[in-house]
Amino acid sequence: MREVAILGIGQTKIDEHWEKSLREIGGEAAFAALQDAGLEKVDALYVGNMLAPIISGQNQLGTFLSDWIGLWKQEAVKIEAACGSGAAAFRSALMAVASGETDSALVVGIEKMTDKAGRDVTASLATAADADYEVEQGISFVGINALVMRRYMHEYGWKHEDFAPFSINAHANAVHNPYARLHEKINAEKFEKSSMVSTPINLLDASPTGDGAAAAVIVPAEKARRKPKVIVSASAAATDTIAVHSRKDPLFLKAAYESAKRAYQMAGVTAQEIDVFELHDAFSIMAALSLEACGFAERGKGVRLGLENEISLQGRVPICTRGGLKARGHPVGATGMYQIVEIVQQLRGECEKTQVAGARIGMAQNIGGSGATVFTHILKSEQ
Amino acid sequence: MREVAILGIGQTKIDEHWEKSLREIGGEAAFAALQDAGLEKVDALYVGNMLAPIISGQNQLGTFLSDWIGLWKQEAVKIEAACGSGAAAFRSALMAVASGETDSALVVGIEKMTDKAGRDVTASLATAADADYEVEQGISFVGINALVMRRYMHEYGWKHEDFAPFSINAHANAVHNPYARLHEKINAEKFEKSSMVSTPINLLDASPTGDGAAAAVIVPAEKARRKPKVIVSASAAATDTIAVHSRKDPLFLKAAYESAKRAYQMAGVTAQEIDVFELHDAFSIMAALSLEACGFAERGKGVRLGLENEISLQGRVPICTRGGLKARGHPVGATGMYQIVEIVQQLRGECEKTQVAGARIGMAQNIGGSGATVFTHILKSEQ
Repeated sequence: MREVAILGIGQTKIDEHWEKSLREIGGEAAFAALQDAGLEKVDALYVGNMLAPIISGQNQLGTFLSDWIGLWKQEAVKIEAACGSGAAAFRSALMAVASGETDSALVVGIEKMTDKAGRDVTASLATAADADYEVEQGISFVGINALVMRRYMHEYGWKHEDFAPFSINAHANAVHNPYARLHEKINAEKFEKSSMVSTPINLLDASPTGDGAAAAVIVPAEKARRKPKVIVSASAAATDTIAVHSRKDPLFLKAAYESAKRAYQMAGVTAQEIDVFELHDAFSIMAALSLEACGFAERGKGVRLGLENEISLQGRVPICTRGGLKARGHPVGATGMYQIVEIVQQLRGECEKTQVAGARIGMAQNIGGSGATVFTHILKSEQ
Repeated sequence: MREVAILGIGQTKIDEHWEKSLREIGGEAAFAALQDAGLEKVDALYVGNMLAPIISGQNQLGTFLSDWIGLWKQEAVKIEAACGSGAAAFRSALMAVASGETDSALVVGIEKMTDKAGRDVTASLATAADADYEVEQGISFVGINALVMRRYMHEYGWKHEDFAPFSINAHANAVHNPYARLHEKINAEKFEKSSMVSTPINLLDASPTGDGAAAAVIVPAEKARRKPKVIVSASAAATDTIAVHSRKDPLFLKAAYESAKRAYQMAGVTAQEIDVFELHDAFSIMAALSLEACGFAERGKGVRLGLENEISLQGRVPICTRGGLKARGHPVGATGMYQIVEIVQQLRGECEKTQVAGARIGMAQNIGGSGATVFTHILKSEQ
């Protein structure tokens, strides 16, 4: 297989874009990525999206978007893996280019969650869970995560306030990201006083939804002349059971562990060599579990990394450097591509006040469902 | 890239499966394909599906199904391209195996359209069209096809009864296919007297929906010991505008033409060398337009192939040999995989009363939307 490089990136601000349609949001990110890559056309388009069929009544988003941005005739397709759709699309594009079947590809993660009155977003998000055995029993997606968080606190003896650093860190970094949904610093007191959503998950444990799109252009590495060159060193995917109750241990993200393990092998690195990690903090509990599954903390001790300030820009494993899902925002099917774009920004040294000094190896991990489908990508910069 | 072979196939009868859930239907086809391939496991699962998020409230069908059939840990993902989802998933799997990233893959096209009272199937199918510029104006998917058919009749002077052979041929072949939805021979008189759906499309111009799944196992060709060996000689995809009104010529399936052209080049064959062609006859007009776009008839003369009996099992271009979308049935996201499975049956010589004598090269063309996303695959058998 050929080595693949990321030549261009683009993104929209995550917000309630009442004034922009689904295609306009996607087009904005797509054109930004093409312009950044210095290309007018690519050979194929891969779109990651979860909710357009339900919320916007629009399927076939590959062609929908290739039509809008003028990629007529070109191959276009949509990939869906719930909140992991963005990285799923990236991985499909990667295989197309790596295999030699395609010489250049544009990947767009896109989601529009506002603007369609009457379509319930909570019910739409629940389509990531098991419709027959979870949702039909009346639980919501946040409810499933709340059960996991409660169990974790019970099992390992953490208090709710111990999760505050995840949220505080994400909000602090988002202030400097113009594309982030929330630009508001928070503190431990505010975290604890936030409104309850589903005990023990409160509003500041949970990521905000939003409308947004993020995109990247990929090409064979030997054709990427840009410096520094950002190489895709590893791409790995793994799955777990779709329903959390089917797992022997609901506190272990087995698919995150598996895909990270394969990615480390592929890239020839260890967790300790990762300079920056964009993880899937849809809820604060997911940040803790992801750090554990990926080898940054022992089981039950992910929370400690936050308490010991190891997740900050100067810490051992900087996470959510552009705000994470928590404060940059979580436009579900687009999130995986925001993570990729942000790692590229870090590796290019474009992050200004939230730049991780000397970042050369970055990892992005995107999760669909409650740890059900997981994609891990490791990127490296080369001078 | 490595050459890829189809090692196993499986399918369920297309029907209203009120007694079987979405996962049960998918599992039935998946296990049949694995058994036919003589494998217990594969490295990755690719699922083609269009409507589960809307009709069954279920997203993330890759993991949903990998969990059900016991492919724990393995990579799994869903690909959607409206009614072209099945072949879209097949093409993604193909690139994964051809690239060397994956050593074996299972592809399942699946759809469950009944059993969810209150979810309108016609409205769900309209998500294949342009939500903003077609559907919001009040037109249905069959309505769009009816406008195209009317224009074709006007432009080229054909009468409605001239389309009868497409439907008659499909129904005649489906009688011998145990997996087909309809087992009823029809004649020209019955065709003309059928109830009107959307003028000029009547019930016997239109394919029936249904529940069903079809699956295939693919591996690198050098690992396939089975005789005859069915090789994937070509895979090509192309797109057109999503809205029919945006096209300069709404009677030309440009994406079908483009993807067929690329497929012929890739396989090193001409249209004349195709022994059997499973085309996307969602409506009889689509059969005519597909034959023209793929080089079997001149513009405006696709209908003549039916009238001259050239589409029958003994004709120049046998189509719908297992019943086609028209009579085998059209469980939308599964259809592309039924077509692939049927071509494999023909190339293996397993079709009994509808066997095309000496079939060695087969083509399957799967269409998403009104000619918007098109996938063409050419398969060859090797002794």
